[in-house]
Amino acid sequence: MSTLSESSTAPTVTTPVSERPIGVFDSGVGGLTVVSAIQRLLPHEDIVYLGDTARVPYGNKSPETIIRYAQQDVQFLQSQNIKAAVVACNTATAHALEAVRQSYAFPILGVVEPGVEAALAATVNGRIGIIGTTGTIQSGAYQKALLTRRPDLQLTAQATPLLVSLVEEDWLTHAATHLILAEYLAPLQAARIDTLVLACTHYPLLKGIIRSILGDEVKLVDSAENMALALQSRLKQDSLLREGGQHAGRTRIHVSDLSPHFAPLAKRFLGGRVGAIDRVRLES
Amino acid sequence: MSTLSESSTAPTVTTPVSERPIGVFDSGVGGLTVVSAIQRLLPHEDIVYLGDTARVPYGNKSPETIIRYAQQDVQFLQSQNIKAAVVACNTATAHALEAVRQSYAFPILGVVEPGVEAALAATVNGRIGIIGTTGTIQSGAYQKALLTRRPDLQLTAQATPLLVSLVEEDWLTHAATHLILAEYLAPLQAARIDTLVLACTHYPLLKGIIRSILGDEVKLVDSAENMALALQSRLKQDSLLREGGQHAGRTRIHVSDLSPHFAPLAKRFLGGRVGAIDRVRLES
Repeated sequence: MSTLSESSTAPTVTTPVSERPIGVFDSGVGGLTVVSAIQRLLPHEDIVYLGDTARVPYGNKSPETIIRYAQQDVQFLQSQNIKAAVVACNTATAHALEAVRQSYAFPILGVVEPGVEAALAATVNGRIGIIGTTGTIQSGAYQKALLTRRPDLQLTAQATPLLVSLVEEDWLTHAATHLILAEYLAPLQAARIDTLVLACTHYPLLKGIIRSILGDEVKLVDSAENMALALQSRLKQDSLLREGGQHAGRTRIHVSDLSPHFAPLAKRFLGGRVGAIDRVRLES
Repeated sequence: MSTLSESSTAPTVTTPVSERPIGVFDSGVGGLTVVSAIQRLLPHEDIVYLGDTARVPYGNKSPETIIRYAQQDVQFLQSQNIKAAVVACNTATAHALEAVRQSYAFPILGVVEPGVEAALAATVNGRIGIIGTTGTIQSGAYQKALLTRRPDLQLTAQATPLLVSLVEEDWLTHAATHLILAEYLAPLQAARIDTLVLACTHYPLLKGIIRSILGDEVKLVDSAENMALALQSRLKQDSLLREGGQHAGRTRIHVSDLSPHFAPLAKRFLGGRVGAIDRVRLES
């Protein structure tokens, strides 16, 4: 795998750093909801996406394995000459963000922090619910980050492991999905939350059915939208924001396994056109 | 990783080949239903199990990736000095059985063939249903094997991708599981099948709820039980069956990722005691 450090024999690159792409990775297709939000907010930016589809999902794996996979994911993005990286996967952010930050010099943003900030801004009664994969919920990452800011919060965290499969099967409005969600959300309703953090990049596609259960009075905090806002702010701060002009941002998608299911799924998550999809090898 | 061919400096092994363990692998925990069936039928045999939990599931991955993973799985089992291997994963059998058979000299059995034989023996009206992961159903492995034997069969194959998650969450009798299964099974009922092949090693745990939907008149063909019978027959034929005496078979479990969920899940699938679980590295 080629990396920046191996490019010493290449001609000097004169492109300003701000014109380099933003790297985004996820265990699979979910992170494309984050890509979609970045495309809408920062239409001039180029994006390199990596979905580790050969090893998806991360949500049921151990922290040690997730850290190893995340390091390989960021290493691939680095080889694509990125200016900043986004960990568009809640499980990987929860377990591996600190580890990858220690290994690379460019800014690396995770999805937890923006979600936490948005939840703190949204809540009025201080009762916040969190739903995510088993890995994300068990990591306690959201719970710790929220309570560090406001120790008086009342948090109800619920692992919702069946939702990823339901979203990937496109059962977004199915009676079974309603039944499963109603059961998952019951303890959060009982706790009278006024804010629900959707702590998985698959869940924005379930906003409609979640609203139909919780009602409009519960605010839904969407990882993807808040991640894009945090990225914009960080790029501005580091003078890395690409100043538009005529450039229309391009998104290139890479996956570690290319099955026939990926392209149609990617189209749904991205909410639009998916260009060429490249297969890459991440191990060893 | 040590292999048989590297053991030339070790002292000569005088143990009869029949006393070596049987190797069994699956993408995760599902293959333990096959181990459980082997333990019941062949209580004197030692078993080495490998669950590739670092990359589970295989069912949504491409044939190319599944073959690569299966080769690494069998390589690990070979290093454990096995006398025969069982691919206790329908997706891996469908895509990778031929490839791994070409790489190793010991007998390698897959779950498709025994299921096909059992279905042929069970059906009266020639209408057979098959349920499995998307990968297994799309491979057409069961359909081809059945129609090769009896071209007059009427087959209805249905991908049932949500069932693995439901089983792993232990929602075996949940209303949502009933709703999802009823929808999946409706086309099979409409086709008036008299035999249903459970083409995934997770599905034996759903027999009760499937029976409650289809009724007792539809025969359920269980991968695990038929696999154990086929293994017994093959070991006999190759003079590899361990003649009992006092030896009580031992099962050793290896996984490529050890998360806290594995042990309780393994206990449910094995239907009994789970000993020490060893973590192994499969890549590179």
